[in-house]
Amino acid sequence: MSLRKRVFEVLEPSVSGLKIARVMEYFFITLIIGNIAAIQLETVPGFYAQYTSFFNDFETFSVLIFSIEYVLRLWTCSEMLKYKHPLKGRMSYMVSRSGLIDLLSILPFYLNFLPIDLRWLRIFRLFRLLRMLKIARYLTALNLIFAVIKDRREQLMVVIMFIFFLLVIIATVMYYVEGPAQPQVFSSIPATMWWGIATLTTVGYGDMVPITAMGKFLAGIIAIIGVGMYALPAGILSAGISDHLHAHKSSKEKRCPHCGKEIQ
Amino acid sequence: MSLRKRVFEVLEPSVSGLKIARVMEYFFITLIIGNIAAIQLETVPGFYAQYTSFFNDFETFSVLIFSIEYVLRLWTCSEMLKYKHPLKGRMSYMVSRSGLIDLLSILPFYLNFLPIDLRWLRIFRLFRLLRMLKIARYLTALNLIFAVIKDRREQLMVVIMFIFFLLVIIATVMYYVEGPAQPQVFSSIPATMWWGIATLTTVGYGDMVPITAMGKFLAGIIAIIGVGMYALPAGILSAGISDHLHAHKSSKEKRCPHCGKEIQ
Amino acid sequence: MSLRKRVFEVLEPSVSGLKIARVMEYFFITLIIGNIAAIQLETVPGFYAQYTSFFNDFETFSVLIFSIEYVLRLWTCSEMLKYKHPLKGRMSYMVSRSGLIDLLSILPFYLNFLPIDLRWLRIFRLFRLLRMLKIARYLTALNLIFAVIKDRREQLMVVIMFIFFLLVIIATVMYYVEGPAQPQVFSSIPATMWWGIATLTTVGYGDMVPITAMGKFLAGIIAIIGVGMYALPAGILSAGISDHLHAHKSSKEKRCPHCGKEIQ
Amino acid sequence: MSLRKRVFEVLEPSVSGLKIARVMEYFFITLIIGNIAAIQLETVPGFYAQYTSFFNDFETFSVLIFSIEYVLRLWTCSEMLKYKHPLKGRMSYMVSRSGLIDLLSILPFYLNFLPIDLRWLRIFRLFRLLRMLKIARYLTALNLIFAVIKDRREQLMVVIMFIFFLLVIIATVMYYVEGPAQPQVFSSIPATMWWGIATLTTVGYGDMVPITAMGKFLAGIIAIIGVGMYALPAGILSAGISDHLHAHKSSKEKRCPHCGKEIQ
Repeated sequence: MSLRKRVFEVLEPSVSGLKIARVMEYFFITLIIGNIAAIQLETVPGFYAQYTSFFNDFETFSVLIFSIEYVLRLWTCSEMLKYKHPLKGRMSYMVSRSGLIDLLSILPFYLNFLPIDLRWLRIFRLFRLLRMLKIARYLTALNLIFAVIKDRREQLMVVIMFIFFLLVIIATVMYYVEGPAQPQVFSSIPATMWWGIATLTTVGYGDMVPITAMGKFLAGIIAIIGVGMYALPAGILSAGISDHLHAHKSSKEKRCPHCGKEIQ
Repeated sequence: MSLRKRVFEVLEPSVSGLKIARVMEYFFITLIIGNIAAIQLETVPGFYAQYTSFFNDFETFSVLIFSIEYVLRLWTCSEMLKYKHPLKGRMSYMVSRSGLIDLLSILPFYLNFLPIDLRWLRIFRLFRLLRMLKIARYLTALNLIFAVIKDRREQLMVVIMFIFFLLVIIATVMYYVEGPAQPQVFSSIPATMWWGIATLTTVGYGDMVPITAMGKFLAGIIAIIGVGMYALPAGILSAGISDHLHAHKSSKEKRCPHCGKEIQ
Repeated sequence: MSLRKRVFEVLEPSVSGLKIARVMEYFFITLIIGNIAAIQLETVPGFYAQYTSFFNDFETFSVLIFSIEYVLRLWTCSEMLKYKHPLKGRMSYMVSRSGLIDLLSILPFYLNFLPIDLRWLRIFRLFRLLRMLKIARYLTALNLIFAVIKDRREQLMVVIMFIFFLLVIIATVMYYVEGPAQPQVFSSIPATMWWGIATLTTVGYGDMVPITAMGKFLAGIIAIIGVGMYALPAGILSAGISDHLHAHKSSKEKRCPHCGKEIQ
Repeated sequence: MSLRKRVFEVLEPSVSGLKIARVMEYFFITLIIGNIAAIQLETVPGFYAQYTSFFNDFETFSVLIFSIEYVLRLWTCSEMLKYKHPLKGRMSYMVSRSGLIDLLSILPFYLNFLPIDLRWLRIFRLFRLLRMLKIARYLTALNLIFAVIKDRREQLMVVIMFIFFLLVIIATVMYYVEGPAQPQVFSSIPATMWWGIATLTTVGYGDMVPITAMGKFLAGIIAIIGVGMYALPAGILSAGISDHLHAHKSSKEKRCPHCGKEIQ
């Protein structure tokens, strides 16, 4: 077996099932989780100042590993049928979703060494967040949820449109009802929409609360509509999950109990 | 084909499927969304003052288009079997739901030119909001939700009656329990109802919170009942959605395609 | 037909289907709703003072009608098989649920004329609230919900026990975690339970909020558990509703497709 | 029958069904509930000071009973096939889950008499909370819920992973959007996560609320996603409950009782 094929199999545990591939998988999951934790902990005031050198070292180490990973993936991608062509295959791998994520998530580190305007650098630093998405390669279990959402995206879009439609009407009516009593709080229809969404989803922050009797009456009706609204995506996604989980059952052949021939 | 029929088909894309009808559809959807946005942005303090002339021009333009649309629809409605009669058909189109919405939503603009009391004019201005409903003609996907709600309206009414019944009891009991401790907050049964609805729907604004041990105990039970309450419309609407989505399956009789016998 | 039977049929529209019985039904529903409204509006500060005479007249009128209704029901109850015996039947009707509600809800009015301690009178006044329950006789649609709840009461009890079990554990742990940081707010385990229930049911009043990192971490987990908790009664009641709605389907005879005999 | 067997049957009502065993069961349930109540009420400020001697006496009494129970269970456990061996069986019973709970929950009391550092004692005192878990032995109804959760633990883990994945992304984005406007409130990504979880689960405490237009827009989308999120565990657990409740139905093969042929 060629070295390239071997490296490819080490990087793709789902293809090869090699033991060293599984070890590499766990190493990458740990490294990515470490990176996610680092990105978040860096923002804690005082924490970054105290452990600056550790955060910097970990960043350098991570980028080094991810760079090697990227180069190896680029080299070995031609093992896949999709990217077989030596040059054109690698080009299309580079602009594929996972190829772009891998590249962009390490880019900010290298841009530090270039003489670029600092303000631009800050925006590029946000690309580090893309490392979070690298974990999706390993958490195949998440695919069930994404598959269900993708399957039912049309119906979910209808529900979101319906919620938005409702929200516009609610905010408009509530603005005219409650606005005169609290002109500072329910100051415009878009501002009232913030209240509408907090009520309709039953979040209820309490930063905007109607005080007039009519406003409270309307808010009560809206809150009850909100309860009903939970039922719509629940019904759609529940049916979607149960369809996915029982997919193997329906894939079994069905036969007529009388003549024994297959039936759709 | 007569000109009237042609105009009718341009206005009704679902009937004709003409390409120009689709273009008109997208134009009207965009115009209506623009109108909805304008109605909302006008209320943002300072925004209207800054762009008054733009808002006025857009309003004039919209009313012009909607007026032409209304006249054309009134002219061509006799293409539909329902409104075939030249005069009686047009009369009944005018008082049909979509006919009324089309007329009332442009009326406020024209009333400006009549010598009417200003106070009445303000109320008529609210008719502009009806333009939001014009979009329902194009968003046929929303019809699934309306159809499900219509299908199950009796059961949903029972749930709403049940919630209201519960609310009356909860508010009455809570008023006598918590009222003495917080006479300013739980000041009357209707006032306590506002707390009851915020708790039962789990919105929980936090503007009214029981402070006595007994009040908190009762509120806890009510909150748990509220959790159960979500199940009732969820069960009804979920069943309704799944019935609608699977309607085509149950409508066909199942027979073995080989021997012709019926199968359960 | 005897007069007693005629009066009985007028009072029980579901038995007779007489037109005058339907009229009586609507009259009683209206009167009860009026009584519920009166009980609630009386508590609005200033409102009772302004309309004292109206509230008193309406109370006298209602009690008069309800008293006549009670006497007539007591007289005609022997038309029902259950209460056939002239004396024993009437005795058992008096202590039946609806008999007791009818009696107790008018009792406070008559006690006013007796020389009783005023403090006792106030408690008896609460019996007026029982008039709310009189409406259940007419709103038979609510019976679907009560039937579903009754059907699944064992499973719902298990869920409530589980929620309570969870609540005790959550409150105990949270008290030891958050108590030291906010001794005034998370002052004891029962006090923390109030926070626990507001979080678990996602009401989230915001009057008690953890401030320590560990407390927030725990609260986050509890809130996510709360989301899962909605699923348990939803699953149970949804299944219950769908069973009730499809009951007529399963009541149809099932026959073996081979020999044609009936199967359970 | 040997004395050991008799004692075993008294302690295990589900095995023997003896009347005295049922009485013992109710006694233990009452005692455990009393202990749970005592643990909670002791933390109420002022309450413990007032009833110190009662709490102490009840603690001594409870530990005495639980100690006798533990010794008897240890003695009679060899009646069970699993723990048949006189010495090795008892050793493995001692380290079994219920054996450990029984021992650890009475341990703090006895440690009082040993010359140990007081600080350690306080931590051991928390072991008293384990008495709550002793009740699980009797509340077998809770097992339905635990069984459903265990059955679906993989799917629930996927949902929890998905929620956590979502939370990390939401908190990171919201920190960069809202942080600059409210640096004291949205002070770091982990701090923003607290807001994220309160919004996604629709708890909405209101201690952290976005104030910028962009932040409110994002929060609205997150709240709507939160509504959808309820559907995922609801679908999974509802299916799990219905599978458990209907398990007996699908377990029996269906045959026509007359001709003996199988029916779908």
